[in-house]
Amino acid sequence: MSFLYNNIALTGKPDSHKVLSTAQQVITILQELQLSILLEEPMARALGQKALIATEQDIINTADVIIAIGGDGSILRAATQYGIFNKKLIGINRGTLGFLTEISPNKQLPIKLKQLLKNKGISNKRFLLENKITNPHQHTTCKQIALNDIVLRAGDVVHMIDFEIRIDGQHVYNQRSDGVIITTPTGSTAYALSAGGNIMHPDLDAIAIVPVSPHALTFRPIVVPATKKIEIKINHHHPAAPPLVSADGNEGVNVKTHDTINIQKSEKQIEILQPRGQDFFASCRSKLNWGRPLT
Amino acid sequence: MSFLYNNIALTGKPDSHKVLSTAQQVITILQELQLSILLEEPMARALGQKALIATEQDIINTADVIIAIGGDGSILRAATQYGIFNKKLIGINRGTLGFLTEISPNKQLPIKLKQLLKNKGISNKRFLLENKITNPHQHTTCKQIALNDIVLRAGDVVHMIDFEIRIDGQHVYNQRSDGVIITTPTGSTAYALSAGGNIMHPDLDAIAIVPVSPHALTFRPIVVPATKKIEIKINHHHPAAPPLVSADGNEGVNVKTHDTINIQKSEKQIEILQPRGQDFFASCRSKLNWGRPLT
Amino acid sequence: MSFLYNNIALTGKPDSHKVLSTAQQVITILQELQLSILLEEPMARALGQKALIATEQDIINTADVIIAIGGDGSILRAATQYGIFNKKLIGINRGTLGFLTEISPNKQLPIKLKQLLKNKGISNKRFLLENKITNPHQHTTCKQIALNDIVLRAGDVVHMIDFEIRIDGQHVYNQRSDGVIITTPTGSTAYALSAGGNIMHPDLDAIAIVPVSPHALTFRPIVVPATKKIEIKINHHHPAAPPLVSADGNEGVNVKTHDTINIQKSEKQIEILQPRGQDFFASCRSKLNWGRPLT
Amino acid sequence: MSFLYNNIALTGKPDSHKVLSTAQQVITILQELQLSILLEEPMARALGQKALIATEQDIINTADVIIAIGGDGSILRAATQYGIFNKKLIGINRGTLGFLTEISPNKQLPIKLKQLLKNKGISNKRFLLENKITNPHQHTTCKQIALNDIVLRAGDVVHMIDFEIRIDGQHVYNQRSDGVIITTPTGSTAYALSAGGNIMHPDLDAIAIVPVSPHALTFRPIVVPATKKIEIKINHHHPAAPPLVSADGNEGVNVKTHDTINIQKSEKQIEILQPRGQDFFASCRSKLNWGRPLT
Repeated sequence: MSFLYNNIALTGKPDSHKVLSTAQQVITILQELQLSILLEEPMARALGQKALIATEQDIINTADVIIAIGGDGSILRAATQYGIFNKKLIGINRGTLGFLTEISPNKQLPIKLKQLLKNKGISNKRFLLENKITNPHQHTTCKQIALNDIVLRAGDVVHMIDFEIRIDGQHVYNQRSDGVIITTPTGSTAYALSAGGNIMHPDLDAIAIVPVSPHALTFRPIVVPATKKIEIKINHHHPAAPPLVSADGNEGVNVKTHDTINIQKSEKQIEILQPRGQDFFASCRSKLNWGRPLT
Repeated sequence: MSFLYNNIALTGKPDSHKVLSTAQQVITILQELQLSILLEEPMARALGQKALIATEQDIINTADVIIAIGGDGSILRAATQYGIFNKKLIGINRGTLGFLTEISPNKQLPIKLKQLLKNKGISNKRFLLENKITNPHQHTTCKQIALNDIVLRAGDVVHMIDFEIRIDGQHVYNQRSDGVIITTPTGSTAYALSAGGNIMHPDLDAIAIVPVSPHALTFRPIVVPATKKIEIKINHHHPAAPPLVSADGNEGVNVKTHDTINIQKSEKQIEILQPRGQDFFASCRSKLNWGRPLT
Repeated sequence: MSFLYNNIALTGKPDSHKVLSTAQQVITILQELQLSILLEEPMARALGQKALIATEQDIINTADVIIAIGGDGSILRAATQYGIFNKKLIGINRGTLGFLTEISPNKQLPIKLKQLLKNKGISNKRFLLENKITNPHQHTTCKQIALNDIVLRAGDVVHMIDFEIRIDGQHVYNQRSDGVIITTPTGSTAYALSAGGNIMHPDLDAIAIVPVSPHALTFRPIVVPATKKIEIKINHHHPAAPPLVSADGNEGVNVKTHDTINIQKSEKQIEILQPRGQDFFASCRSKLNWGRPLT
Repeated sequence: MSFLYNNIALTGKPDSHKVLSTAQQVITILQELQLSILLEEPMARALGQKALIATEQDIINTADVIIAIGGDGSILRAATQYGIFNKKLIGINRGTLGFLTEISPNKQLPIKLKQLLKNKGISNKRFLLENKITNPHQHTTCKQIALNDIVLRAGDVVHMIDFEIRIDGQHVYNQRSDGVIITTPTGSTAYALSAGGNIMHPDLDAIAIVPVSPHALTFRPIVVPATKKIEIKINHHHPAAPPLVSADGNEGVNVKTHDTINIQKSEKQIEILQPRGQDFFASCRSKLNWGRPLT
């Protein structure tokens, strides 16, 4: 039996029994297939598999495929940590049902995994957003990368923020709101959807700008070509509560008045391997419950 | 000239030139009418009117009417600080256009003020919500009162919270979201409106429960009779980010897992004096811009 | 065994096999209980039970309880045809899951039915709306009654209509839209919900005004006390497409420019008998799928 | 003075005084510039300018530019009647404010018109949708073309329709609703916006599928690449009310059960000439009133 991908890294938060038991199951499958396995240290320790420990750099240098076990959060992390270095990604779902973690850890797991590692799945390329925050002196204070979204939010929950959106240098609007979500098509089924964004097909080369509880009734999300450069300039915030910018829901960084958040499509992209027969609309139907009538 | 109300307190944040100049204008009008004036200390100092200084207790004991100068925030504060002790409220608008601060500081101000103080306006009664937060040992850890809304929000912007809503002891739902707004009709044109709540007429004896960015597409705001008792029980939150409960947008208090937020209609109510001819729908039209077509 | 209700009428559209087989099952149960049965002629003929035929007037004169078999449409019809004459209503669900037809035709049916007929269920009172359409000469051209909603809609699908809403004689707004829904709390989980209306608890004494695809972004549904009288005046419509007013989704009547639709709470009410343990929020959870997370 | 475009046709509904007086003003300007003028017969007769009458075919053969006077409806009609034959379009606004009819008939009109005709404006290319309706025997029964949207709507206002959406042959969902809007970016600020669609930037090569009052709470609009082929298959409708398919809000055609509506991006496109300094976001701000705070 020959495989296209021979060096496989496993990632996931090793603090859940479900993740660990699935990780052990995957290790057994990979060992039977005589493939090389790399484990991040915390997972290796939790599994008592110290021989398989690999550093982040080892994984970047060596792995062909990253198998992320957990919810969508696990694959988001694997995407920005390893996926951007041309590692293929496979998501195994152990959290709540996700759009990215398509394989379930059931009886089908060995056969599905084998097919994906033999390159008999579907390759699903997704683009990322990159973010550069600059202060009023044009110094870059932070860089972020995201597969789902870059979110600007008020620093506390009782004060709105005032900001300006510019697209390719053109003024779009000033807004007073709880914040704004800049999302890829991948992120359009995540937080942006809760805030009133439309769903974007994964093949769409577009970015959506979705306000969060805007203090006016006429704002609507806007979908723009992914070539557009988006700037968010902080006009005003409550002095005691600097706003926060976070990528893919990770711990964010604070910004302050006159800082600018510069968001654009990254040149990097990631590649998710999915079983054949799994399409985006099937995921929408099962996860959003489409087709179930109201009464 | 005889007035129904003779002891008038002025309130408002004395940190804005606009508020102070309107306060001075009101003082002049009241002095011409030979009415007694009470000023909170910060405003009195800012205006150089130390002779008029009154303590909070003086105002509660003596004032017939409170004139709040500023935006809706000023009248919200006056309502819960003084209005609940049977003081009539008059709002003079110096912030952004508000639903509660109906009088503008223009040429009409002296005549409108005189009419209101002679009881020739419309009395507008509004009910309040009161909130009691209890810990798992049934100890009350905090009480709050609100004219607009009681808001539960996640403690930071990257973690949702899990909570249960109960109404009159009946389970309604478990929800994962950024939070939830419990609003009076008065608050229905404020934050709740941004989050998808319907507008409730001020005469309606009802409370609305409005989710904030719920992590599911099927939640909708619910409007219930104001006699219902609403409990929100915290099921889970990120350990580093205890959720916050705030009344009328004020600095809130933190709650934690298994705490319960008990919200009900207060027995207290407040009374706002408004000029004749001003009705709720006129406010909606001017403030929400109803009737302006899309294109 | 003694029953509170002895004269039972069965209603439902006899054109579905499911309805007829459930009707036959109910007849058998009622006959075993030695209760008197009345059938509308079409159902009696379809079941070959001509001996049980009763006219509409017989049913109004004699029946204590109406059992409506079908979807929510069947109980809506039974409500406005018989329920307003103080007949108790029981809904047996044979359509898509409804908020009003709570009993399912399973093994539990005989025991549940017996309990309801012995008055061991919960009585659920609901108010109705009544509608009087007047022409510019103040002549009444039509009267309607509705348990769910009165809906004004454009006469065809390519032309919006222009109308004015007045509440208790006060101008609310002029609107250009596909139409407007005036709904009771009972109707708030039906069409109004699709159009952005909030859910109203059945105990709430309120009416909501819900615009359908308004040609402006700032209109929002309004909830008003049920004592308010609502007028909709047609300002303008396309000459070839007179708008339509329908009650509870029935075939409507056409209106034209300057006609007025006068809607108010009816003095009549209806009473639905439901099994104990069935509450409104349980229906919301099962029918709206509350609590199922997004991903 | 030399012009790029010398043969100018005027279109618009000649039934409004405003349209006719603007048309006369434009004719005067064009005559001073010694440009050749073509008028559709009804407008020529209404203006008493029979010498300028041109047939539709004349205009298609000869005109370089079409000036459409009226609301967005006038330019939509000019677009699908003439614009698809490589005529440039200029819209002069005499209806309610439009996104397409950017020039106002004020003092600036002569100078703005001159600039556009000298090719000193901005050329704004927009794609169209084409629609082919087929019956169950695969016969094409109708073809339509649209700049804004193709809309499927229930045939009357009291019955929903059941239909299936397929994209590039893949099943997306079955839906029960009042209908569905398939919109270009150009149409995203029109009817689709009322129904909950997001705004799409004119440069975006995408199509959105926007449900109208769907009978379930989980449907959301989807934005797909404009290369996708969309099929809508009628599953069921009320026999007495065949659904209607209309392009750009024009009188539609009826469809029935098992008919399929096949929608795709047209190879044709149109080109609108607009004054410099006019950008899409400026139109959004002025027409959607962005930036005006809630209170």
